[in-house]
Amino acid sequence: MSVIAGVHPVREALRAGHALDHVLIAKGAGGVKLREIIELCRQQGVAVRFEPRDALDRASRHAVHQGVVAFGSSPRRAPVPDVLDRARCVLLLDGVEDPHNLGAIIRTAHAAGADAVLAPDRRAAGITETVIKASAGAIEHLPVLRISNVRQEMQNLKKRNFWIYGLDERGTEDYDKTVYTPPTAFVLGGEGKGLHEHVRKDCDFLVRIPMAGAIASLNVSVAAGVVLFEWRRRQRL
Amino acid sequence: MSVIAGVHPVREALRAGHALDHVLIAKGAGGVKLREIIELCRQQGVAVRFEPRDALDRASRHAVHQGVVAFGSSPRRAPVPDVLDRARCVLLLDGVEDPHNLGAIIRTAHAAGADAVLAPDRRAAGITETVIKASAGAIEHLPVLRISNVRQEMQNLKKRNFWIYGLDERGTEDYDKTVYTPPTAFVLGGEGKGLHEHVRKDCDFLVRIPMAGAIASLNVSVAAGVVLFEWRRRQRL
Repeated sequence: MSVIAGVHPVREALRAGHALDHVLIAKGAGGVKLREIIELCRQQGVAVRFEPRDALDRASRHAVHQGVVAFGSSPRRAPVPDVLDRARCVLLLDGVEDPHNLGAIIRTAHAAGADAVLAPDRRAAGITETVIKASAGAIEHLPVLRISNVRQEMQNLKKRNFWIYGLDERGTEDYDKTVYTPPTAFVLGGEGKGLHEHVRKDCDFLVRIPMAGAIASLNVSVAAGVVLFEWRRRQRL
Repeated sequence: MSVIAGVHPVREALRAGHALDHVLIAKGAGGVKLREIIELCRQQGVAVRFEPRDALDRASRHAVHQGVVAFGSSPRRAPVPDVLDRARCVLLLDGVEDPHNLGAIIRTAHAAGADAVLAPDRRAAGITETVIKASAGAIEHLPVLRISNVRQEMQNLKKRNFWIYGLDERGTEDYDKTVYTPPTAFVLGGEGKGLHEHVRKDCDFLVRIPMAGAIASLNVSVAAGVVLFEWRRRQRL
């Protein structure tokens, strides 16, 4: 992920319409130029976060940042078709909001041998420092593709012959008894909410993890691990 | 878990030698009595954390806490033998330090049908509010037994005919090809460190999760999910 430090470079990136994930602004920083940057972010739907100056020092690796650091969207955004052409297994996220979970999911997907994680641009965790840290380095190796619309991406995947398996507690098939036909796309819902109803309906299969106990739900990154490593186990048989 | 609020009740609990998990003290609070409480905690090895007063308000459910709130160890500590007598599968933690991970592990173990989680008293995450929240309620259903020494507990489990499976990346058997003989104890190491060498040596079997990719390690709660749900899958065959 690219990091852009300094008032002028960040403003130019915004004016040029570069795809930015989010912008950090030092707490207490002010001035006309920063206000212009915040306004440009607002217009373009780029998240702005206010953090202590030393967080910006670290984020910019101690570049001269003048109180503003921008994080570019993954440069891997462009070659989505190439990644998907070669993929046997991808993970599509329907609204995972917790950055620790997103990082752990990226780490898990990479370790299970998935080829990409597809995550929405909006109303979901962006690629922040927390995500990068929780991915334990996996984000440098696994393409994380930002998508604008989950259902649209499902149609796109279907056109590319993917079979879409939604993980849903109301699913009709057990995850460990389902046949996973390649290329396979797994869809996971957000924490505590599961899949959106219209996403659920567009899945080819709905699979569930049968659980014991009184709680009967898993952390979303643990659920990703259980299903992806079952998929991987089949590949290794 | 019991919560004790107020200077006098907490001091009495400490003097009476009640098993306490940790004590919260409001930042900025002081006085002879609080100093005595801190000294008693130090003598008894009870963790002390300094937090904003509103955190104590929440923790004590707005009781009159006078700047000090103590959390009792799980009252389930007493009947350890009973739980282990009936158990088919337990999870023993060798130094999991992150409270989010501990909570997610408890949640996962309950959903997989394990009978107990055994976690060290010291140098490991205590049962804090974060753990309780991350367990998503599972901690109310699954016995979490605090133990004083991992190796000693392994000997105790062996006397009870448990077979001990350590999860270790240098393991010789793949987790999905190993036979899990009941009663089964899984041992998991801490984040980024794995099992302690002497714990590793005391395991009956060392199993590994074969991974793809350049990172080849999983978040400890995800690893727990992969192994426990493989165990569960076998139970259901």
